[in-house]
Amino acid sequence: MQNTQLNRALSHTSTNPGKRLRPQLLQAAARATGNPVSEALAAAPAEAIELIHTYSLIHDDLPAMDDDDMRRGRPTLHVAFDEATAILVGDGLQAKAFELIASEEQLSAQQRIDLVACLAKAAGFEGMVGGQGLDIEATERTLSVEQLKNIHALKTGALITAALVMGGIVGQANPDQKHILKAVGDKIGLAFQIIDDVIDVRSDSTTLGKTAGKDAAAGKSTYVALMGLEAAEAAALALYQESVALIHDWGTEADSLRKLLARMVKRDS
Amino acid sequence: MQNTQLNRALSHTSTNPGKRLRPQLLQAAARATGNPVSEALAAAPAEAIELIHTYSLIHDDLPAMDDDDMRRGRPTLHVAFDEATAILVGDGLQAKAFELIASEEQLSAQQRIDLVACLAKAAGFEGMVGGQGLDIEATERTLSVEQLKNIHALKTGALITAALVMGGIVGQANPDQKHILKAVGDKIGLAFQIIDDVIDVRSDSTTLGKTAGKDAAAGKSTYVALMGLEAAEAAALALYQESVALIHDWGTEADSLRKLLARMVKRDS
Repeated sequence: MQNTQLNRALSHTSTNPGKRLRPQLLQAAARATGNPVSEALAAAPAEAIELIHTYSLIHDDLPAMDDDDMRRGRPTLHVAFDEATAILVGDGLQAKAFELIASEEQLSAQQRIDLVACLAKAAGFEGMVGGQGLDIEATERTLSVEQLKNIHALKTGALITAALVMGGIVGQANPDQKHILKAVGDKIGLAFQIIDDVIDVRSDSTTLGKTAGKDAAAGKSTYVALMGLEAAEAAALALYQESVALIHDWGTEADSLRKLLARMVKRDS
Repeated sequence: MQNTQLNRALSHTSTNPGKRLRPQLLQAAARATGNPVSEALAAAPAEAIELIHTYSLIHDDLPAMDDDDMRRGRPTLHVAFDEATAILVGDGLQAKAFELIASEEQLSAQQRIDLVACLAKAAGFEGMVGGQGLDIEATERTLSVEQLKNIHALKTGALITAALVMGGIVGQANPDQKHILKAVGDKIGLAFQIIDDVIDVRSDSTTLGKTAGKDAAAGKSTYVALMGLEAAEAAALALYQESVALIHDWGTEADSLRKLLARMVKRDS
């Protein structure tokens, strides 16, 4: 691509060190199937899901959305460049995600189609975008815990579950394994979001790398506000334990997945 | 999708009668291959390319981009709703486009993958998004005709060429036919854009359904400004004639494509 401004903005984005949780989950889920899956085989779908996550952060940070100036300890893209660039980079990253999967010739056409279908659904109106829409509508309203769970299941849960299911597709999981990977994703995705709220209350902006206490200040419902800090932490821990129990019978090839699940709830940022 | 605000915005979008040029081109190109292609077989990719076009209009109209209040004779989405909704609806429509193709079981997995790859590339940094980025950077600068052609080849040409190439994929075009369909797309896409500039100068807002003379007023280079009105029209006509000549040997199954190509240059809005 010859476009200098978009190129500079892209390199601002790609040099920003995130946790790369979703690609790691995808890789770990692929290995957990027990089928031989090289890191290279899962690389394109892993990168694709990270691109979807990155684009969503760029758009969520826009002034018309959550209006965040800082992300991962650095100025957000629309602050470092401008809003038009941030909108376009997000749009381009989404397209790039699907192009990456479609072009990965190490995977069968059927695997690639299943991956595209899974990722597109998780990213769209029935997943991440739908959840973000509900989240914006819910601002300044007090929600029930069930309503909050539903928003988060879409907004962040769908993509985390997709990471696990996509790993299953790459690893040619059998139907039982696919079913379990989806259930693990649903549970750990919710636990992850609850812990996010807990951290948001406990941390300051320095360790978090983004504006702290922002959700509460923005009039958004949080698990901590609705359940209390201790009950929220206990609920997250219970969900984590249920997710681990689901793969209790799986062999040592699931160890990297187990480690990742633990890291998702036992973290401080 | 349960989201009421996004649902209302989506229905505002889908009831807005556009010309549906890109889906028509895709359908006509599929039939032009001479292979049996029902309208139903091409329906999902045709809808997908229209969704990409629609999302791009929604994002292009945003205040941070071209800042347009009117589109197809109606308020743009961010005016009728708000910016956050317009950003999210655009994002969701892009995901939906790829989901539609991936889920179309009448097409082989290989056809679906080829369609996703073609559409994603045309929509992304090496196509539409890249062109839009260049277009924004070029505002208030005088370009050469070659620079302007390059911007438009990406910004609008890539998706028009994709419509023809995708039609070829649906119709299982042979390599020769694919090559020709791509060349037809490149030529007619450029002619289409030149005629757009001509119409922009000649029309008023009422017949156009969008703000007239906007590009010139916004300090953007146009073919008419760079070449003069008559030379621009002559160039568009020459490109159209070249595109028709490329399919001169094709049979009557290419007649609907021929009609569409003619309509793209002989129009007043």
